[in-house]
This record gives sequence, structure tokens and C-alpha cells, in this order.
Amino acid sequence: MKKSLGARTVLYPLPVLLVGTYDDAGKPNIMTASWGGIVNSTPPMVAIGIRKERHTYTALDTTGEFTISFPSEENTHQADYCGLYSGKIADKCAELGLHDEKADIINAPIFEEFKACLLCKVKQKISLPTHDMFISEILDLRADENVLKDGKIDIERLAPILYDNISRAYYAVGKYLKPAYTEKRVENK
Amino acid sequence: MKKSLGARTVLYPLPVLLVGTYDDAGKPNIMTASWGGIVNSTPPMVAIGIRKERHTYTALDTTGEFTISFPSEENTHQADYCGLYSGKIADKCAELGLHDEKADIINAPIFEEFKACLLCKVKQKISLPTHDMFISEILDLRADENVLKDGKIDIERLAPILYDNISRAYYAVGKYLKPAYTEKRVENK
Repeated sequence: MKKSLGARTVLYPLPVLLVGTYDDAGKPNIMTASWGGIVNSTPPMVAIGIRKERHTYTALDTTGEFTISFPSEENTHQADYCGLYSGKIADKCAELGLHDEKADIINAPIFEEFKACLLCKVKQKISLPTHDMFISEILDLRADENVLKDGKIDIERLAPILYDNISRAYYAVGKYLKPAYTEKRVENK
Repeated sequence: MKKSLGARTVLYPLPVLLVGTYDDAGKPNIMTASWGGIVNSTPPMVAIGIRKERHTYTALDTTGEFTISFPSEENTHQADYCGLYSGKIADKCAELGLHDEKADIINAPIFEEFKACLLCKVKQKISLPTHDMFISEILDLRADENVLKDGKIDIERLAPILYDNISRAYYAVGKYLKPAYTEKRVENK
């Protein structure tokens, strides 16, 4: 018999998504979000939940274009910083010394400091009680050469992090468990 | 300069969500999904992307009620099995010897073999090109006593798994990195 713990925003594992945008004046901003995930295969689509009060919300609403960077273990302090202070009062990119370059295909920043990112374009906005969900197409995946193996991102080289919102802490990706799509069918066990 | 790897459904980390439903006849089914995430805080809401062809899709469309179980490391083979075979042809719950009990507050199965789960109710369905997104309210979080610490789920005791769809493999949650919300503001660095 399982214990009831109440209605909680709990999911394992929660991602740490660094949402990068340019505002009207072309100033870069970056915020940490854990609400979101992949929602469609073809074309690749991601949905992220952002509060209306966020500085990033305005940029998403204006340009409709953004990047999602995946912090590596060495970026954990930057990911935490970007979730703590609002771009309305803090110039987080300058304070963290981040280097951004405008993506070639969208009006959004690619940051040198993070090893992989998605280039995204908003397709649909769904209003929910506290957050709006931006359903977006993934136009491209970009990554540094040093996290690639045979031309693909190697999760162990990228070393992405995850978030536990119960203990309010960041964790690493751990050991390899097993390959997927390998279980043999057992009928009428 | 980052390398372009094309439009890909990549996100770190991807969750392994075991979606449990009853069909019209009250037969339990369970499928593995990695498309989804939390999308709203109050009330707690989760969105999952499910293909129309899936057996689970019909159940979600009919009852609108489902559970999301989080597999622990010891459940990795079951999670893989539930992603491989369709409930249309396989009685996955019987084949895996899973024990289900109808949740008290919704018409969906809680499985004894998985240590934590969410009880969910569909609020809105958004059609996307290959998947439909079920935006759902989380009504309760349930967990076994042995994964709790001070009345809350302890991520290290639960030992949830994650999926890497590039190497097509399951990974464990790794080492504790640092507490969140602890970075001090550095102005004009």
C-alpha cells in the first residue's frame, strides 16, 4: 500500500533547461527551466512551461525563437545562477561572463560555455493556470566536437545534469544500466 | 563553433514514464513513454505525448485517467519491455507478472512493482503531427514507505532511471552535485 504524498509537481528525472533569448534591444538573457520535455517526433518538438512574469516570457512572445542549452556537470553553478535571478534586474550573461553568438537560422543566442543546445521556434502557446506552455519545433541540435563520438553526442562526454525538486539539488547522470529495445517477449508467463 | 547535428528529438535527461491505464473491459495496460514533462505548478500538471496508434491512447481518450510510474534501477527490464510491445497484442501486465490495484480516486492501475507513481487526469488534448499531447492534472503522488526519508521521496532510495535516445540505453541517476538556490549574486562581474 503506497502512501499518499499529495498533489505535487514531481517527475523523475527533471531536466535542467537553459532557455536563451534576445530581447527587443538584442540583449541576451538566459533562464533555467525544469518544466518541459519532448512532445512530438516528426517534426521534433519540445514544450516548455514559463510563467508570464518571467523576462524570458516576453522575449519568447516577441521573437518566438530561443535556444535550450544543456548544462554539463561543470556548468552546475551557472545553471543555478540562471534560475535564481530575473533578467529584468540582472544581466545574467554579463555577470556569469557568458559568450553568446546569434544563431545563423534563428534570432537567439548560442552560448560558448554550454556544450550542446537546441535551436527552437515557437509554434503554439497554451495558457495554463500558472505557466504558459510554448510548444516549439526543434530546428537543429548543435554540439561541441569534444562531446561527440562517431558524429553523435555521447552522454558520458556531455555529462548533463538533472534536478531533484524534492531535495532541491542537482545530480549527475550515473552509470550505464542496459541497452533499450532488448527485452525478449515472454508470452503467457 | 558548434557542429550542426540536424533536427533531432534530443533532451537531457529524458524521463522513463510508465503510463498505466485500464481499457473499457477493465484490463490494465502499461506503456513506456519518454515524451513528456511537468508543465504547470499550481495545480501540478504534466503533459505526455502519445501516438494515436497506441493502445494507451484509446484508454486515455476513454477514461481520461492514468498513472505514471517511475521505474527504479531494478525495474529497468520491465520499463524496456513495456516500450517494446503493444497492449493491442500483448498482455504486458500478465507477461511481466505485475500486480495492479485500482487507485481509489481515479480509474487507473497502481502497480506494486514500481515504488512511486503519479495519479493523473486529462484536462486538455492538443493534436501535434505525430503525437497527441495530453495535458493532465496531477491529483496525487504515491510512494512506498521504503523510498521515503522524513516523509518525502528520497531520490537515492527511489533510484529512478533515465533514457538516452542517442545511444538507446538506460542510465542511473548519478552523484549529488550541489544544492540549488545557493549561488550568490555577483553584480557587474
